[in-house]
Amino acid sequence: MDHQAIQSIVEEVVLRLTEASARNHSVPMAVSARHCHLSKNDLEALFGEGYELTKKADLSQPGQFAANESITIVGPRGSLEKVRVLGPARTMTQVEVSQTDSVRLGVKPPLRESGDISGSAPITLVGPKGSLYKNEGLIIAQAHIHMTAWDALNFAVKNGEFVKVVVEGERPVTLGKVLIRVSPRYKLEMHVDTDEANAGFITGKSKGKLIKYEETV
Amino acid sequence: MDHQAIQSIVEEVVLRLTEASARNHSVPMAVSARHCHLSKNDLEALFGEGYELTKKADLSQPGQFAANESITIVGPRGSLEKVRVLGPARTMTQVEVSQTDSVRLGVKPPLRESGDISGSAPITLVGPKGSLYKNEGLIIAQAHIHMTAWDALNFAVKNGEFVKVVVEGERPVTLGKVLIRVSPRYKLEMHVDTDEANAGFITGKSKGKLIKYEETV
Repeated sequence: MDHQAIQSIVEEVVLRLTEASARNHSVPMAVSARHCHLSKNDLEALFGEGYELTKKADLSQPGQFAANESITIVGPRGSLEKVRVLGPARTMTQVEVSQTDSVRLGVKPPLRESGDISGSAPITLVGPKGSLYKNEGLIIAQAHIHMTAWDALNFAVKNGEFVKVVVEGERPVTLGKVLIRVSPRYKLEMHVDTDEANAGFITGKSKGKLIKYEETV
Repeated sequence: MDHQAIQSIVEEVVLRLTEASARNHSVPMAVSARHCHLSKNDLEALFGEGYELTKKADLSQPGQFAANESITIVGPRGSLEKVRVLGPARTMTQVEVSQTDSVRLGVKPPLRESGDISGSAPITLVGPKGSLYKNEGLIIAQAHIHMTAWDALNFAVKNGEFVKVVVEGERPVTLGKVLIRVSPRYKLEMHVDTDEANAGFITGKSKGKLIKYEETV
């Protein structure tokens, strides 16, 4: 690599770091309503053999989409209809609800990182062509921040680290134990569920301020 | 007053202050589910002439009780059944719901201190003997702490002041703009609604830590 190219790269890095420090550790927020991810097998059991999800809208995380399809989920105390299916199909079926939903369903899902469903709560799924009793797969999603390695450098955090996020406004709230998830596929965004959103009047237009645990607020 | 009496009073004051500082600013929490307070006129319109509430259980605040009676509340998008009536009857009818409830009802109540219902949201109330359209009275209750003047002295706060409350645990949360309400009739207790409770896995067994706004966490 010639001297000129190295100089250009160094300048680009410095520029990005400078921009980052000006950002004041602001994180765009997104609110996740109850939803489910289905494995290919479970999708077919609920919607019919060979069924493929159809896209309703792209989600902010690249490649992810809200499908036109929805299902009913049922617990011992109640049910929730029109639970949105997200695509594409995954290896494991996972249903994400709020604690408020859990009370209505009569279930006790654990607070978990997405993908960590081992030993989570059972739930019944009902689709237009069948129903399924899943022994596990029901969770309350832990608040988390998607980011790239660049963002992680900017915020001085690591993948798997927990941070606090302060959201100001009419009903100010600070959420603790917010998980940092780093991947080149991600776009900077914090995901909270509807309970967290409603407790802080958080919407898709809100911004959070990331605070490392050793810092004071 | 004799010297002996004055000495006794001073000792009692010092003792209580010493106990207070040992408390570490801990506040017991209570979770308020959706409920309503009815005026005498509205109670009769919904339950029949001359109707009186019957007590199901005492509440933690002295004199307040959960009645056996419940009503249905209805908004443009949906309804909620079995909304508990609290007694005794008040001067003004007031219905307190969560933001989650508001979405189900299709209404937009403001975040308000209890009793401040002027210009709040309209709501329809349905009882066994009648129904009512209230032009105002629907609110989301602002998180608040009931306390006596002794507690206020202990926490170094004043009636009407806003504070932050930190609740540790599996899903740690800090609630901001928590209102201090001081009265000799009160018992020390922080009231949150079900959204705030669910966002922080707060139950009636939780404790919060009161933080003044000028302090760091």
